[in-house]
Amino acid sequence: MSEPAVVLLSGGLDSATVAALAARGGFDIHALSFRYGQRHALELDAAAKVAAHVGAVEHRIVDIDLRSFGGSALTGDIPVPKGRSVDALADIPVTYVPARNTIFLSFALAFAEVLGSSDVFIGVNALDYSGYPDCRPEFLAAFEVMARLATKAGVEGTQHLRILAPLVDMTKADIIRTARGVGVDFAMTLSCYDPAADGGACGSCDACQLRARGFTEAGIADPTRYAAGTP
Amino acid sequence: MSEPAVVLLSGGLDSATVAALAARGGFDIHALSFRYGQRHALELDAAAKVAAHVGAVEHRIVDIDLRSFGGSALTGDIPVPKGRSVDALADIPVTYVPARNTIFLSFALAFAEVLGSSDVFIGVNALDYSGYPDCRPEFLAAFEVMARLATKAGVEGTQHLRILAPLVDMTKADIIRTARGVGVDFAMTLSCYDPAADGGACGSCDACQLRARGFTEAGIADPTRYAAGTP
Repeated sequence: MSEPAVVLLSGGLDSATVAALAARGGFDIHALSFRYGQRHALELDAAAKVAAHVGAVEHRIVDIDLRSFGGSALTGDIPVPKGRSVDALADIPVTYVPARNTIFLSFALAFAEVLGSSDVFIGVNALDYSGYPDCRPEFLAAFEVMARLATKAGVEGTQHLRILAPLVDMTKADIIRTARGVGVDFAMTLSCYDPAADGGACGSCDACQLRARGFTEAGIADPTRYAAGTP
Repeated sequence: MSEPAVVLLSGGLDSATVAALAARGGFDIHALSFRYGQRHALELDAAAKVAAHVGAVEHRIVDIDLRSFGGSALTGDIPVPKGRSVDALADIPVTYVPARNTIFLSFALAFAEVLGSSDVFIGVNALDYSGYPDCRPEFLAAFEVMARLATKAGVEGTQHLRILAPLVDMTKADIIRTARGVGVDFAMTLSCYDPAADGGACGSCDACQLRARGFTEAGIADPTRYAAGTP
């Protein structure tokens, strides 16, 4: 019998790759997404397609309202930066959402405990995107330590939470090569922070630029559908 | 100028006491409550009264759906235990909600970051209620370590999150004495897990029993309004 695992699924390329890796690893996938006041719900449609594609047992979408705090270009009224250089992303960008991964992982922890699972997969990546503090290995390690003290199952010894972040040290090109190896359908995924209403990617936000460069560096044709008029 | 602090407010006696302590400490109080699928919304009414009473700058109520995972008598369809002995609460009770305080503190972390605050107050107590893993000092300490790695403000050095849990080592009688000292209006607070529709306490759930015993031990008259017919 295979083990259940919670897979955080955003609908982007990275989490789709992680979901495919978890499926290859023989886990029963319980996909978890959030409707968190993001600018567009298109990524939830992408997440649903990816969940079905990897044969997830279920796909839960939890409503949480991160807009009530604001503080981010992804949930508030700060514009998404376009066309800036992604070669020097030293500063934490305005697309950072306060404590987002802490909140997402906390819900994953609750879900895992109810499922009787110790494995939570997350598609974070520290290398190409060092700007987000909650994508770094030291954050994930500290979350694991905290989580083992947080739950009934942890205290009773039936849950030893592992945060599995197989992409954490990969470049975007590595991720894209890995994704191809495990059968990710790139066209299903949506990485753009600010897509058009029809789901076309903007081509100029940080996420679009990093993704496009990853395809180039990996030497793999980029099937991303860009919005009409994108250069 | 006073410093902002996030105060997690449930509407119960403990969080009301913490809110009053924070107010005495000179903090600007940003109260935070959750509509999380609990059995009754009466506690949110109590929280609103307490927030006003302590002069909170604001009171945010965030909607999150913990019912979607189940696993608890407080959010699911497991009955709330009544009339059992509270002298030997060695086992974690069915009123435990998976990862609840981890989730609440994660939202508080996000709110604190947006406010530019490093102080989060929570009314947990490990002594009278050792059953809940996420009420213990070792959990809170691990959360602080994680939180300092999680946020933009933490990484940039402007936020050094402190989880302030002034009641963590107190007995219920200590808490009640402290509460009286800082002017908590006990009649405003609601501790019961299963109140009647009119807000009367059931008198027999664990929370009611611990509260009633606390008043007796503190030698303070108990102004709790019990539901009609409660023995």
